[in-house]
Amino acid sequence: VKAFKSTALASRLAENGHRGFCCATVREMLGMAAAGLGHDLLLANESLDLSRLTEVVESGVARVTVAVDSEETIAAAVQARIREALIDVTVGMPRCGCEPADAGRLAELARSQGLEVRGVMGYEGHLMREPGDTKADLVRRSMELLLEAADAVGGDIVSGGGTGTWDVNTWVTELQAGSYCLMDTEYTAHASDFENALFVQATVISKNDRWGVLDAGLKAFGMDHGDPKVLDVGDCWFVSDEHITFGLAEGASVTVGDRVRVVPAHVDPTVSQHERLHVVDGDEVIEIWDVDLRGW
Amino acid sequence: VKAFKSTALASRLAENGHRGFCCATVREMLGMAAAGLGHDLLLANESLDLSRLTEVVESGVARVTVAVDSEETIAAAVQARIREALIDVTVGMPRCGCEPADAGRLAELARSQGLEVRGVMGYEGHLMREPGDTKADLVRRSMELLLEAADAVGGDIVSGGGTGTWDVNTWVTELQAGSYCLMDTEYTAHASDFENALFVQATVISKNDRWGVLDAGLKAFGMDHGDPKVLDVGDCWFVSDEHITFGLAEGASVTVGDRVRVVPAHVDPTVSQHERLHVVDGDEVIEIWDVDLRGW
Repeated sequence: VKAFKSTALASRLAENGHRGFCCATVREMLGMAAAGLGHDLLLANESLDLSRLTEVVESGVARVTVAVDSEETIAAAVQARIREALIDVTVGMPRCGCEPADAGRLAELARSQGLEVRGVMGYEGHLMREPGDTKADLVRRSMELLLEAADAVGGDIVSGGGTGTWDVNTWVTELQAGSYCLMDTEYTAHASDFENALFVQATVISKNDRWGVLDAGLKAFGMDHGDPKVLDVGDCWFVSDEHITFGLAEGASVTVGDRVRVVPAHVDPTVSQHERLHVVDGDEVIEIWDVDLRGW
Repeated sequence: VKAFKSTALASRLAENGHRGFCCATVREMLGMAAAGLGHDLLLANESLDLSRLTEVVESGVARVTVAVDSEETIAAAVQARIREALIDVTVGMPRCGCEPADAGRLAELARSQGLEVRGVMGYEGHLMREPGDTKADLVRRSMELLLEAADAVGGDIVSGGGTGTWDVNTWVTELQAGSYCLMDTEYTAHASDFENALFVQATVISKNDRWGVLDAGLKAFGMDHGDPKVLDVGDCWFVSDEHITFGLAEGASVTVGDRVRVVPAHVDPTVSQHERLHVVDGDEVIEIWDVDLRGW
C-alpha cells in the first residue's frame, strides 16, 4: 500500500480478491487495520517502534506479520508482543535484510523468543531497470539467494518482487507490487503491462509567447526520478516550489485558467504529498479517495 | 511562509517585529489569517481560485494583497472582491510575471476595475547560485527592470528578493525571504549568514559492516536539490521511499536503534511533507509546532 496510501483504493483491491497487503510504515499498518483490511498485513520493513501495533495484535483486529533482520529488530517485535515475523534477507540491493547465510540463525533466535516465523522476504528492486532477458536472469540469481535462505528458515512464505520485476519473478509466493495500480513515467518504461492512471491536474496561472506556468510544483511531485511530464501543451522546463514552467508546444493553444494534466515521475512520493485522489471518468469526478495512510 | 508552513513559527517572527508575511498558496493565506497573523498578507503568486479569500477580505480578519500579471488574474481578483494587488513582473527568471514594459498597462487596467495597486513584485531567484560579485551586479540589473516597472505602476511597494540574494538586493522595500529561518544544505552555500536549524531525525533500522539504513526516505525529504546529508555516521548512498542507505564512516560506531540527524537538501519541499516540527534544545524537545499550512 505504500505506493497509493489509501484505504479506499485498498478496499477495491480487497473486493477483487487481494486480501493480503504489504505496508512500509506502522501508520499504514494501523490505518489498514482500522479500515477493516487486516486479514493479513505484512510490515515489509524493519521497525524499532512496534509497540504501536500491540493493541492491533492483541485485539485480533488484524493479523500482523513484521520483517526482522537483526537481533535488535527481533527484540523489538518480541517486546511489542508481535506474534509473527518474516526473516528479511538481502538479495543484492544494499538496504535492509540479513545475509542469506545468517537467515537460519535469526529464525531460530526469533522462534526461541516465541515468534512464529512464517518464512522469508527479500526485494530485488535494484534489477527493475535491467533490460528484458538480463532482468529475468538476474532476478533468478537474486531469488536463488532468497530460496537458499527460505530453506534454512522454514515456513511457507517467500515474499518479494515488485511492479518492475513481477513478470519475471516466478519464485515468490507473494508479490509485493503496488506501483502497478497507479503507475508513473518511470515505471511505465519498466512495466509495460500497466497503464498510467495517476495525474496531477494543474491550472495555467501565467503565460506569454514562449512559456506557461502551472500551479503545481515540488510540493506536488516526487522529484527523485526527475521532472514530471506535462501533457499536450508543452515540455517541462523546471519545477519550483509551487510552479512548473513549461515551454509552449508548437501550435499549442493555452489560456490562463486552462487545466493541464501532468504525469508524475515517481508514484509513491507524489501520492504521499496529496490529501485526496479524485477518481475521474473523463472530466467527471466520480469518487474522492482520501490518502489516509500518509505520515508515519 | 512557504518555506516553513507553520503559523507557530510565523508567530515567533511576528513577536520579533515581522508583521507582514508573504505566502505562495491560498491555504497559507487562510491559515495565517485564521491564526491572527493577517496584519499584511501578500499572496506572492498568481491564482484563479481567489474566491476562497473573499470572506477574509470582507470580514477584515486580514489585509490581503495578491499578485497579478495578466488580464485573467486581474479579473479573478476583482471577481473575488480582493481589494489590493501588486503587479508581478518578470525580472529574468522564466516563471510568472508580466514584461516590465507591460506593467503600467496592467496597473491601469486593475485600477479601472477597482483594485488598489500597491506596487510591484519580482523575484530574481535565478541569480541565487551566482558567485559573490557577479551576483550583486546581476541582481542590480534585474532590479533595474523591476524599478522601471515600479515607475510605470506607481504605489510604494517594491517586493522581491529571497534568502539567496537578500544581502545584495538593496532595491526592494520588502524582502520575500523565508528559507533563512530553517535553512538546508543548498542554501547554506548561498547564504552563509544563516545557520542550519532543520534536521530530520531518523532511526537506524538495519546495518552490517559496510552500510546502515535509516527509516526516513523520499517521503521525508525534498529531493530536487539532491540527496540529504547524513551527519556523523556516514555518507548517503541513495534514498528509497522510506529509507536512506548510508555507507558507514571509518570508525563510526552505529547500532540498530541509534538516532541519526539528516540535513535536508531543500527546506520547502521537506517541511511540507511533515506534520510537525519538534523544537529541540540539545536532545530535549521544548516545543512542538504543527506544520499547519500544508496543502493547497
